Amino acid sequence: MTQNIYDNEQFFQQYGRLRRSREGLAGAPEWPALRAMLPDLRGQRVLDLGCGYGWFCRFAGESGAAEVLGLDVSERMLAQADASTRDPAISYARADLETVELPAGKYDLVYSSLTLHYLTNLNRLFEQIQQALLPAGRFVFSVEHPIYTAPNQPGWLTVGERQVWPLDAYLEEGPRSTNWLAQGVIKQHRTIGSYLNSLIQSGFTIERVEEWGPTAEQVAEQPEYALELQRPPFLLVAASRS
Amino acid sequence: MTQNIYDNEQFFQQYGRLRRSREGLAGAPEWPALRAMLPDLRGQRVLDLGCGYGWFCRFAGESGAAEVLGLDVSERMLAQADASTRDPAISYARADLETVELPAGKYDLVYSSLTLHYLTNLNRLFEQIQQALLPAGRFVFSVEHPIYTAPNQPGWLTVGERQVWPLDAYLEEGPRSTNWLAQGVIKQHRTIGSYLNSLIQSGFTIERVEEWGPTAEQVAEQPEYALELQRPPFLLVAASRS
Repeated sequence: MTQNIYDNEQFFQQYGRLRRSREGLAGAPEWPALRAMLPDLRGQRVLDLGCGYGWFCRFAGESGAAEVLGLDVSERMLAQADASTRDPAISYARADLETVELPAGKYDLVYSSLTLHYLTNLNRLFEQIQQALLPAGRFVFSVEHPIYTAPNQPGWLTVGERQVWPLDAYLEEGPRSTNWLAQGVIKQHRTIGSYLNSLIQSGFTIERVEEWGPTAEQVAEQPEYALELQRPPFLLVAASRS
Repeated sequence: MTQNIYDNEQFFQQYGRLRRSREGLAGAPEWPALRAMLPDLRGQRVLDLGCGYGWFCRFAGESGAAEVLGLDVSERMLAQADASTRDPAISYARADLETVELPAGKYDLVYSSLTLHYLTNLNRLFEQIQQALLPAGRFVFSVEHPIYTAPNQPGWLTVGERQVWPLDAYLEEGPRSTNWLAQGVIKQHRTIGSYLNSLIQSGFTIERVEEWGPTAEQVAEQPEYALELQRPPFLLVAASRS
């Protein structure tokens, strides 16, 4: 079973205070880049893996998707997601992405935002997603960037007048325990190569790989984003069923 | 014109002393991983971009390639490459990879080792390579890893008992001046995403992405390699003509 940190009281409270929790997609700086990777959603059948509060599911519904299913391991988040919509095209269900069985040849789009880096068995899920897509289907996801998840001691270092990211352990894949919103949150570090090769081996064609950083406009609006240009916080990938 | 650092006297002398210059492929720790990405070379038509001393061209000839052409910008290296073989399947020519025109639909394999990070206009070359390949042709290359080329001040930092790689400027693509073997060698930093998206836009399908680090055996033989596990020094990519 996936570590279900979102049902941890402290984590859930803290998470609810993040800008991306309060404001949804508009509060996620990488959203415009991720959105640019999506197909036209009108009439599409959409699956969101790790749907959280359901912000993306509602966006898909409002964009004219024919059917939207959001899966998440957190009962609390599903309850909140469910209470936030009356769109009959949208439904939610609880699922552990480590073991979920997806129906064959059903979806036009599988989407996942900042979820897959919690999973230990990604090959299995990628194979599930591949067979769940329709022939021209697309899989679009974001994860924390491997440069971000790698270090034993993440956090900026000041060297003279510069701030540098203390990269180490990049090629040592496996769990990382971080104190993000709560103590001992476990994330799985894997390299970019591992993400991409696992997709290719599961029968996907890589369509786009984006190492996200803020635009000049975003930095002008929120100067603290400038630091993110030193090392990308997010990796965004679009792949199609081959 | 590409910076032709290899015809700089100091650089050329120093370069000739590197293990990979003296021992060839056997002296390049990433060679086994790169070799594993290659097709069977028997009967193949092979183009090597940035062939240097011609180690790979001779390997291709010995592996039964039908025709091998090595291109390089350095006259000195080409002279040495030419003097090192009598294989009639192998030929060498001088070319600037920024402006080279390649024949259409001619090659089974285009290969390039640690050369492309010197070039400013990679999109143009990728398009040239794509159209130069036969329909089932393959493009296999290595470059210095973007994590390696990014920092303003590359070099390990000691933090307590750890050594970390001081990553910054990862998302700032462009020239980097380094003092590798000679003063002011200019390399072009680009992100992994840029390499891959440029390939995809040029009509390639990504087949494999390897962020190279030493194997356990290599570390046992040469303990100084252990540090390379902290951040990969090389990026290896295999792509096929779509």
